[in-house]
Amino acid sequence: MVFKKTAILGVGLLGASMAFAMKKKGLSKTISGFGRSEGNLRRALEKGIIDSYSLDAREAVKDADLVVLSTPVGAFLETAQIIKDAVGKDSIQTDVGSVKGALVYELESVLPRFVGAHPISGGERSGADNATDGLFEGARCIITGTDFTDPLALKKIEGLWRALGTKVELMDPDLHDRIYAYVSHLPHVLAYSLVNTLDTTDSRQIRFAGQGFRDTTRIALSSPELWRDICGLNRQNLLDSIKAFRQELEKIEELLLKNDLDGIEAEFTRARSLRKSIS
Amino acid sequence: MVFKKTAILGVGLLGASMAFAMKKKGLSKTISGFGRSEGNLRRALEKGIIDSYSLDAREAVKDADLVVLSTPVGAFLETAQIIKDAVGKDSIQTDVGSVKGALVYELESVLPRFVGAHPISGGERSGADNATDGLFEGARCIITGTDFTDPLALKKIEGLWRALGTKVELMDPDLHDRIYAYVSHLPHVLAYSLVNTLDTTDSRQIRFAGQGFRDTTRIALSSPELWRDICGLNRQNLLDSIKAFRQELEKIEELLLKNDLDGIEAEFTRARSLRKSIS
Repeated sequence: MVFKKTAILGVGLLGASMAFAMKKKGLSKTISGFGRSEGNLRRALEKGIIDSYSLDAREAVKDADLVVLSTPVGAFLETAQIIKDAVGKDSIQTDVGSVKGALVYELESVLPRFVGAHPISGGERSGADNATDGLFEGARCIITGTDFTDPLALKKIEGLWRALGTKVELMDPDLHDRIYAYVSHLPHVLAYSLVNTLDTTDSRQIRFAGQGFRDTTRIALSSPELWRDICGLNRQNLLDSIKAFRQELEKIEELLLKNDLDGIEAEFTRARSLRKSIS
Repeated sequence: MVFKKTAILGVGLLGASMAFAMKKKGLSKTISGFGRSEGNLRRALEKGIIDSYSLDAREAVKDADLVVLSTPVGAFLETAQIIKDAVGKDSIQTDVGSVKGALVYELESVLPRFVGAHPISGGERSGADNATDGLFEGARCIITGTDFTDPLALKKIEGLWRALGTKVELMDPDLHDRIYAYVSHLPHVLAYSLVNTLDTTDSRQIRFAGQGFRDTTRIALSSPELWRDICGLNRQNLLDSIKAFRQELEKIEELLLKNDLDGIEAEFTRARSLRKSIS
């Protein structure tokens, strides 16, 4: 299956990498880009990632049979409203956002052939300059069909993400958000909070950090704007996950206060064994 | 400066890597090992990392002019007590432990030519099998002299760690423990607690984790026994750092409850900027 024209709305790391991979694999005859920064769009054009661009989303989606929402996730709904009358009847729409849940239901009420997708890849880098055609290769991609999802659109989007090299998994949008609160959104909040903790003593002491600290806080290099949006859109699940985490942390705190080192070792052993299951 | 005989008490990742590097650089004519597991000691011998071994620490330190404490840090004091009458008058002693503070003062009261050292390297792997001769190359090494430290011993230990390729920094043992509570011990507690948080919902959901979660929790693969010891030995600083962290996390929680996304973005931006200073 080859698309005639793909419109990438937001040519950042994910959008540009998707365009890059689609070009390389011949999945779209032509690709247009839309974004806020003309400099970024021009560089994507020069790199051959996109064939044209516009600063007007309605212009970018004209005649596109595939539209990809890949702006920061907080702008999806507004972008959907802007393009809804400009997308053609044969066009299908998808996204690459880290939040699904209620957002998917809202998006499909605006764009009737919308199918939510969340490729589990990316990183703390951003922008078209960091795009690679292999970003999705071997990654998991969650596709969140609902009772309202157009079956043919769902099939096409599944096929697209398989063709991009991802392992596709279908999941309810609400379950997606509960799971990703714990395995992704909470870790980001913790990483940002850990770095800020150093600010409460002498922040220059950060230079003594070794590889452990660096790895643990790598995701604190991620875009604050993007993660602000994600926190806002998955607020309740995130609050639940923070509460669950606080209880685990308080368990360690209490064991420390009681100097119960055996208890601490048991908690660490439990964590290590679960972590080993994905290493 | 070349040692006649080095005794490595605990031939784990750090001890074996130190022996390995000392051999490669010709820093010791002969190296003996002591440990609990004869299998591990035999493999270290076969790999040529040590020249002899004993299951008796007193035997291993006989005639050694350098003794290195590299068992899990919780066993240092007991090991020091065992060897104190067996070490010769010309012998100097050091360690590779992650905790200094009170432990250094206790160790130097038992071993009068003890100089505390903390090379900032290692990782979640353990055992002589994972030893590499380049583990310390380019790493920082904190050396914790005190008012009681023998100046000549201090000079020799500084020279040794420089010869091993580390960037040596002198620091008060108590300051060391305050700093490393924040940049190392706290991150370990958070990583273990984050993994355990997944246990509170459905632990099988861990398979949906992406690279961010993996990086953030890599150190939860570390030895529970070692980290239990570290927590116990740096208890008060660790409790302080946990408290400071909880306040940062509660700040995010309150902003989320108020749906103050600008406030959240500001916190994330503050963290990102500090984290960038070491990236």
